Amino acid sequence: MAKEPKKLDELFHDTLKDIYYAEKKILVALPKMAKAAQNVDLSAAFDKHKTETEGQVSRLEQVFELIDEKPQGKKCAAIEGILEEGQEIMKEYKGSPALDAGLLSAAQAVEHYEISRYGTLRTWAQEMGLDRAAKLLQETLDQEEATDRSLTELAETCVNQEAESQAA
Amino acid sequence: MAKEPKKLDELFHDTLKDIYYAEKKILVALPKMAKAAQNVDLSAAFDKHKTETEGQVSRLEQVFELIDEKPQGKKCAAIEGILEEGQEIMKEYKGSPALDAGLLSAAQAVEHYEISRYGTLRTWAQEMGLDRAAKLLQETLDQEEATDRSLTELAETCVNQEAESQAA
Repeated sequence: MAKEPKKLDELFHDTLKDIYYAEKKILVALPKMAKAAQNVDLSAAFDKHKTETEGQVSRLEQVFELIDEKPQGKKCAAIEGILEEGQEIMKEYKGSPALDAGLLSAAQAVEHYEISRYGTLRTWAQEMGLDRAAKLLQETLDQEEATDRSLTELAETCVNQEAESQAA
Repeated sequence: MAKEPKKLDELFHDTLKDIYYAEKKILVALPKMAKAAQNVDLSAAFDKHKTETEGQVSRLEQVFELIDEKPQGKKCAAIEGILEEGQEIMKEYKGSPALDAGLLSAAQAVEHYEISRYGTLRTWAQEMGLDRAAKLLQETLDQEEATDRSLTELAETCVNQEAESQAA
């Protein structure tokens, strides 16, 4: 008998596992980025986002519960690649005035990956009538968008200017 | 003698090579996604974005020229990972009513990666006084953001609803 094709609820579950895996990886990466950052505001922003990420992991666990599934990650090639680029920057720009600008660019790539995933999951949850899950996902999406905006602000105001003035 | 640490102009150049590589990969992926899509509007959106991407590649080549560098790609682990996830979806959801929703989610992950990279490059170009480059990068950024919005619209109006109704 042919296997039944996978449906939207399974795609939702698969994508949930993908971002759960990603968040766990991000939790490990953030303290390294905070330690590497030269600018104290940037370092503090990474620390703050680590605390937020812990809350996001807990919200994901609630979503798993709402669809009667055990919280479980699934290897996410996208976040592996994005974080690998961040690690390369930490290595290649160590001691450089441009390091913080590079860390910011890596962090914003991470934020945008999360924004796309949470936006998708929220829309799917709405369409499947999973209102409580949609609300939890929206909450995290709002937080990720706010983090991205505050990183842009840091990039525009201090960190990039430091890099540029020291490079002159 | 110790090597001089890399500076913002080098970070800009490295990141330019990263997104140039990514855009070339995206050019190869888009026709496959257009062919796989079940919804005609989604297929047309992928075709349209391929034409836009050709323009984006050409703008990147102009930016390379503005900084007196040869257009050249550099392996970008992030886009490799993001596109790998898209390929998995095409394989795992082939014949499923949820395929288009999955393709849309993959395409939006790609868009968000590009949005983060072009935003970063535009800000750096402005700070280095590369006004013409900043303008070209802003042009592409606007286009990517518009593409992301139109994919969200497609996701909210037709594709996901198809997936859900067929899954019921």
